[in-house]
Amino acid sequence: MRNLKEHFQDCCINTATLGFREPIGLVADRVAAAGFSKITPWRQEIDENKPSKAAFEIRSAGLAVSSYCRTTYLTASSEVERLKSIDSNRRALEVAATLGASTYVAVVGGLSDQSKDIEQCRAQILKGLADLIPTVEQTGVKILLEPLHPFYAADRSLLNTLSQAIDWCQTLDPEGNCFGIALDVYHVWWDPDLRKSLLKSGKLIQSFHVCDWRRNTQEPLLDRMMMGDGVIDIPRIRASVESLGYAGPVEVEIFSREHWWKEDPDQVLKICKERLESVC
Amino acid sequence: MRNLKEHFQDCCINTATLGFREPIGLVADRVAAAGFSKITPWRQEIDENKPSKAAFEIRSAGLAVSSYCRTTYLTASSEVERLKSIDSNRRALEVAATLGASTYVAVVGGLSDQSKDIEQCRAQILKGLADLIPTVEQTGVKILLEPLHPFYAADRSLLNTLSQAIDWCQTLDPEGNCFGIALDVYHVWWDPDLRKSLLKSGKLIQSFHVCDWRRNTQEPLLDRMMMGDGVIDIPRIRASVESLGYAGPVEVEIFSREHWWKEDPDQVLKICKERLESVC
Repeated sequence: MRNLKEHFQDCCINTATLGFREPIGLVADRVAAAGFSKITPWRQEIDENKPSKAAFEIRSAGLAVSSYCRTTYLTASSEVERLKSIDSNRRALEVAATLGASTYVAVVGGLSDQSKDIEQCRAQILKGLADLIPTVEQTGVKILLEPLHPFYAADRSLLNTLSQAIDWCQTLDPEGNCFGIALDVYHVWWDPDLRKSLLKSGKLIQSFHVCDWRRNTQEPLLDRMMMGDGVIDIPRIRASVESLGYAGPVEVEIFSREHWWKEDPDQVLKICKERLESVC
Repeated sequence: MRNLKEHFQDCCINTATLGFREPIGLVADRVAAAGFSKITPWRQEIDENKPSKAAFEIRSAGLAVSSYCRTTYLTASSEVERLKSIDSNRRALEVAATLGASTYVAVVGGLSDQSKDIEQCRAQILKGLADLIPTVEQTGVKILLEPLHPFYAADRSLLNTLSQAIDWCQTLDPEGNCFGIALDVYHVWWDPDLRKSLLKSGKLIQSFHVCDWRRNTQEPLLDRMMMGDGVIDIPRIRASVESLGYAGPVEVEIFSREHWWKEDPDQVLKICKERLESVC
């Protein structure tokens, strides 16, 4: 397993960690000043009609863009809505390319409004992802499927385990040219099949996210913890992933409305660095 | 699939549905008056030093006891604490026998205090369950392993999927004499492997629980919905389970602190019956 002190250039800050409080240029400056060289921004921070401005600001800060977050949900109640989502995701792939991101993270969507048909919704998601393949090929930006914790199945993502993400990648893209997987410890730490699935994942995992799970969490969306403060044995999961050859980014992504999003951003970044080097 | 109007004798009320507001004798009278013939009580409702009183009251109401809820957690920070839990569960199995229950539901426990070692905790649970086998054989009360939603992995249960429950049953008890599975749609509806796991489950499923999942739930412990009000396609899951030969109880278990636990119990039971007959 990499020593992240020696490989700190592999660490990345996902801007969600800072709570979307400041313009991306300023965020990039802070991230760079804290010693990081990679950043993953969110779409709400980028003017998608004029992404070259943000691209310039991030580059000027001395940072490379790792991934771009994230897809418009691919489940929809009508074909019109579905096509709108595809269009939005095509535009985002182009923006990702402008930013220099090599990957675009897919949070695929939960049950569409009024629907209880989980299989039909999952089929719709696969169709939507397939529809994006030409744009992936044209832009060179891969889509990373991120399995989300089953807690979010109804309203955010019907992709809920690593095993399922592997199946989807193999179904959509047997050559592995267009899709990969973003693995976040928050979403998968509980999975009794995690080790078995990792063994099947080959080179599919292309982004590895860290944060921590509060033991008695009441609000699993926006109350994530700093690495080391919760119950996840992050080093064990990272060791498993890296033993299979993973050498990509270790990305901090902490949604924490009531705590970290209220702290001084420079302090948050300092603690992220310390924790990456000590407990991840 | 059974028509539950014609097979209403197979339906059961888990007393959690009524919010533990009244003594078990009164609860049993209400459940019987609503037309049910089966009940699953909780330990907190029973004087475990004198269970024959509750047994008499339930029998006098004209009800049979289906299961008894539930295990003291099997994860523990010390051997003393672990043995205390085993003792408590042995006593509960004896109480279950006195009540006439054929099964005792296991909610196995999450990570023990201070621990992040998910594999060690899971091994501890398996050891604890194995320790209970002699009492299961002596009382004739089977233990039903209930996979809980992964949301509860840290603090309530490290048994999180049907597939894992099947593995555990086969490991603990290849003959299938001592352990079975309680399957609650609330915990498993999201599982992409549900259908595949059901095909592997054989005769292991011995209790089937229903309630519903709120689309944007913020509090997945005590904010469960009445069947039909949420996003779970209950008939599809029940059809799958019954197509494999399941003919056991369909048990309503709704934890709903802010809604159903504040309603008139007779009204709640009336709606449970209507929904069992119409949307399950």
